[in-house]
Amino acid sequence: MKRHLQVELENMKKRILLIAGMAEESVQKAVKALRSRDVNLAEEIIAGDQAINEMEVEIEEECLKILALHQPVAVDLRFIVAVIKINNDLERVGDMAVNIAERVLVVAKARPVSLPFDFDGMALKVENMLKMSLDSLVNSDVDMAYKVGLMDDEVDTMNQRCYDMVKQAVKKEPERIKCFINLLLACRHLERIADHATNIAEEVIYMVEGEIHRHKLEVFE
Amino acid sequence: MKRHLQVELENMKKRILLIAGMAEESVQKAVKALRSRDVNLAEEIIAGDQAINEMEVEIEEECLKILALHQPVAVDLRFIVAVIKINNDLERVGDMAVNIAERVLVVAKARPVSLPFDFDGMALKVENMLKMSLDSLVNSDVDMAYKVGLMDDEVDTMNQRCYDMVKQAVKKEPERIKCFINLLLACRHLERIADHATNIAEEVIYMVEGEIHRHKLEVFE
Repeated sequence: MKRHLQVELENMKKRILLIAGMAEESVQKAVKALRSRDVNLAEEIIAGDQAINEMEVEIEEECLKILALHQPVAVDLRFIVAVIKINNDLERVGDMAVNIAERVLVVAKARPVSLPFDFDGMALKVENMLKMSLDSLVNSDVDMAYKVGLMDDEVDTMNQRCYDMVKQAVKKEPERIKCFINLLLACRHLERIADHATNIAEEVIYMVEGEIHRHKLEVFE
Repeated sequence: MKRHLQVELENMKKRILLIAGMAEESVQKAVKALRSRDVNLAEEIIAGDQAINEMEVEIEEECLKILALHQPVAVDLRFIVAVIKINNDLERVGDMAVNIAERVLVVAKARPVSLPFDFDGMALKVENMLKMSLDSLVNSDVDMAYKVGLMDDEVDTMNQRCYDMVKQAVKKEPERIKCFINLLLACRHLERIADHATNIAEEVIYMVEGEIHRHKLEVFE
């Protein structure tokens, strides 16, 4: 009962969007948990990561089956290899959401801090990058993929600003270092999610244009 | 002039060891630069990363050619897919070495700190993990690959200890926060190199045993 390659590829597109949706939701929940100091929500994210991990393994096994049974070439081969790598990025995005959730468990124990730093703004930009990178995959939209690369630079600047503010805050209230460092780490986790979105966008460019653009986006930044 | 698949696979093994050697050397230099506060060495590492990036692209393109031309199956297919992913991990190991080198540029400007933390011990363990994960690849040595997974847990504990010490140090000397945070970040970069070594080991287990062991090593930890 060997199905046609094109049907398999369409199914694979649906599957990668499924794990993408899970990873996106996990990030959104993590940002919300940090904002609202919601320990229950943080624990829900940590527990939910197992499902993302299992889905990653399932997708990769399916890709290998397609490679072995259908031996795709050209654009179909590039699609499958891109899926294998994007799948890996999405699983790591899920890990980053877990890392943020673990920060929530620490931060929620301390009394609230107010930093003059726009964490929500940074989170929103990162969530958008992730969304855009996946839209570029679904629509094979290279222009959108290039935009993701440009946004990554803005996120790096925001992360640097967070670091500067934490530095100032620690000098004023050194006894609160634990809380400040955890907020700084949460920003770094967000920044790494942005890196994964950029990887995904680079894979899409490669998939569509047939050339590896990795490390070339850096020139644009 | 189509060469035999086995010759291509042997060549690919040599190539992946070449990029592995470059990434390993970069990490060793970064650790040395941090220890000796050597700005010149740090700048050399940053400049040298471009060569690793180019090698990564070259290897991936070569893997795709092998997939398209030879359409390998079973263990050969698993080897090529493992190489694509290990190649990606090694490129990111190179990025982590660059990150450590960037910390050196900051730390070297400040007067030396003495923390009661065994950074060299942690670095040595991480370098060993990377070496062992690559040895397990060359020799298809699953036992050694499992050992790498166990070591990852020790590195996580060391990283946690570094964080605790930095916390204490900042409370005593809050004006030196910049320097302390950069040392903490250097430890986190090391920890991520250990994560990549663990990924490589998991790929080797999968390549040899034909089952995806990712996320399963976690049970051992």
